[in-house]
Amino acid sequence: MEREAADGVKETGRVEAFSDGVFAIAITLLILDVKVPELSDGAGTRDLLRALGRGWTSYVAYLLSFVTILIMWVSHHRIFTIVRKIDHAFLFWNGILLMLISFVPFPTALLSRYLLEPSARTAAAIYSGHAILISLAFQAMWRHATKTDRLLVPGSRHEVTRLTARYRFGPLMYVTTFALAFVSAWLSVGLCLVFTLFYAFQGLTHKG
Amino acid sequence: MEREAADGVKETGRVEAFSDGVFAIAITLLILDVKVPELSDGAGTRDLLRALGRGWTSYVAYLLSFVTILIMWVSHHRIFTIVRKIDHAFLFWNGILLMLISFVPFPTALLSRYLLEPSARTAAAIYSGHAILISLAFQAMWRHATKTDRLLVPGSRHEVTRLTARYRFGPLMYVTTFALAFVSAWLSVGLCLVFTLFYAFQGLTHKG
Amino acid sequence: MEREAADGVKETGRVEAFSDGVFAIAITLLILDVKVPELSDGAGTRDLLRALGRGWTSYVAYLLSFVTILIMWVSHHRIFTIVRKIDHAFLFWNGILLMLISFVPFPTALLSRYLLEPSARTAAAIYSGHAILISLAFQAMWRHATKTDRLLVPGSRHEVTRLTARYRFGPLMYVTTFALAFVSAWLSVGLCLVFTLFYAFQGLTHKG
Amino acid sequence: MEREAADGVKETGRVEAFSDGVFAIAITLLILDVKVPELSDGAGTRDLLRALGRGWTSYVAYLLSFVTILIMWVSHHRIFTIVRKIDHAFLFWNGILLMLISFVPFPTALLSRYLLEPSARTAAAIYSGHAILISLAFQAMWRHATKTDRLLVPGSRHEVTRLTARYRFGPLMYVTTFALAFVSAWLSVGLCLVFTLFYAFQGLTHKG
Repeated sequence: MEREAADGVKETGRVEAFSDGVFAIAITLLILDVKVPELSDGAGTRDLLRALGRGWTSYVAYLLSFVTILIMWVSHHRIFTIVRKIDHAFLFWNGILLMLISFVPFPTALLSRYLLEPSARTAAAIYSGHAILISLAFQAMWRHATKTDRLLVPGSRHEVTRLTARYRFGPLMYVTTFALAFVSAWLSVGLCLVFTLFYAFQGLTHKG
Repeated sequence: MEREAADGVKETGRVEAFSDGVFAIAITLLILDVKVPELSDGAGTRDLLRALGRGWTSYVAYLLSFVTILIMWVSHHRIFTIVRKIDHAFLFWNGILLMLISFVPFPTALLSRYLLEPSARTAAAIYSGHAILISLAFQAMWRHATKTDRLLVPGSRHEVTRLTARYRFGPLMYVTTFALAFVSAWLSVGLCLVFTLFYAFQGLTHKG
Repeated sequence: MEREAADGVKETGRVEAFSDGVFAIAITLLILDVKVPELSDGAGTRDLLRALGRGWTSYVAYLLSFVTILIMWVSHHRIFTIVRKIDHAFLFWNGILLMLISFVPFPTALLSRYLLEPSARTAAAIYSGHAILISLAFQAMWRHATKTDRLLVPGSRHEVTRLTARYRFGPLMYVTTFALAFVSAWLSVGLCLVFTLFYAFQGLTHKG
Repeated sequence: MEREAADGVKETGRVEAFSDGVFAIAITLLILDVKVPELSDGAGTRDLLRALGRGWTSYVAYLLSFVTILIMWVSHHRIFTIVRKIDHAFLFWNGILLMLISFVPFPTALLSRYLLEPSARTAAAIYSGHAILISLAFQAMWRHATKTDRLLVPGSRHEVTRLTARYRFGPLMYVTTFALAFVSAWLSVGLCLVFTLFYAFQGLTHKG
């Protein structure tokens, strides 16, 4: 459990537990927008398969948002192997991040509902726009945590430099998919998907 | 894990974990009332943007309740840096507090649904009324915990005095927004919003 | 974290964490059945208040089930101050208990929906019937845990005797409210409410 | 809390906590698809009982999926008594497993909705197909964790051999129920149910 030290910084235990809870719930609530098709009585196998097929945008949106939140959780998780004390500003940015993560089911449902409609590009732009906000909140939290050594595990400067270089790509990536959304919703969502799956699959080949 | 001591007081570990769970779930369930607009097939970008715009009361209600629950969690969290043992009465007040926090999605949905209707003031009064109950339950828990030193971390009297002065503002604030609701729903909700955001932003400037 | 010992018993840490999660989620999901009334546009304050008033069965059902789950959690919690090792049968009974707790939103919604209908007694009987199942699963878990000293904290026999006497009232109580449901739904639900609130309020007067 | 060691492996604490959260939420969300029947006003006891009876597919689907997720949790849990360090590939497979577990409410709702319809066999095949995916993800995680001793608790080779033999039955079982679904939905679901209940009841007779 955390105790406040003389300089106003605290241990991280319960913040991690609460954040884990919010991440775990947000990621699990995504399934509520994957709806079972409602067919009239007596509909046969072919009708059901066709109806399930028409629901593909909701499966893609589910996959995309699940993997995105999971990657955010892994990154959040990694931060806490380096940050071992927190202060009020860190709590604030963490709160903003959690609010944006909790909000993910909304742009996800929007994308799932409108990806095949004339307004697909708007839905895709909002989806990427929300992802930009998430990556910016993450950046703000990371920068605050690492600007001095006060909150860090001793000797983690080298790792901080490595991760700072890596986390820079997040906002850049989503600004790209946001811009692409004005050209084509499919290109924008496709690139989001490639990006998140690539990042997730790295886990398989990454040494160690 | 907690073990009951000879005088009937216990360690706080699992109560914190359970409370964190309830806070995390209540805060994440708020998104379920931010609904994706349902447009007829073929509706274009402009229709979608207009429909999303009309949903602004649900975004404001989401923001307000998310930040309110987050602030309550931070305060709950702070209490447990001072309280290190609990008794039955403490558990009771904590239970009341958790019940009220879990109930937040209801007044939130009410506010979101009726803020633009003739009954807006009723919805705003119920929202603030519920916030009064939350702040009173919090007060009761805090007063019970701090009336003697039995449940406290040794040497925390000074911090108790400081926090008691601070927590006094909660009920006062919500009584004000409750009274204002009978004049204007907008004034009432606006002040709630200013109050919670101010409190949250303090985190950025607060030293340490 | 738990490690399996030579005799097949384990530490309890992660089972407690998982159980806490299920309790916390089940208790928080109850709010999803307290619905905001849907009025036609232009409905005024009086209409809203009247519609909210008509929803009182859902508030009562919410209160009753919230307090019931909370009491079950407190008891579950107390068991783990005495049980410090678990075996397969304990895990099994705990699983049954969690399944029944997770199911609580269903009889709650049934009660809330039909308490003012001609079928109120059926709804009340199902509600109490489900509570009987919960209390029996709890009994089975408790009896398995305490029949030998193998899983207990050393020196807890006296506390076991005290709690066994106390837990005996649960099934008896709900069998009574179940039987009463065939006479009057109101009497049955009223007694459930009195029972759970009495049990919860004990916390305030209980010494220590 | 986990710290990254020199060889890129980490402690398991927070991964367990996050996974527990996802399991606990997925298992508790299943109740959202057990719907209270909606009868017209004035419907009597007999109508309600008949309507509740017609909902039996949703109770069976609830029971089946609840016990399935619970068994997966127990197994996941057991893995972590043997695995005490994790690497990126383990995290990846754990992520896939959690995504599939979170998805369970969808095939469950599908089964519940279509088990009495002409398309029942499709629903049963999808249900078992999803269970195959879960058991394969579990296998992949288990094989990765146990192929060398790097991530294991020292001296757990014997237990690994025993569990590997046991876990082999999962995919085999679900391939069987998947194939059976093309013959009869009832046979397929019945066998799933027998299998999961048998596995769960083992807990009662299992020594220790």
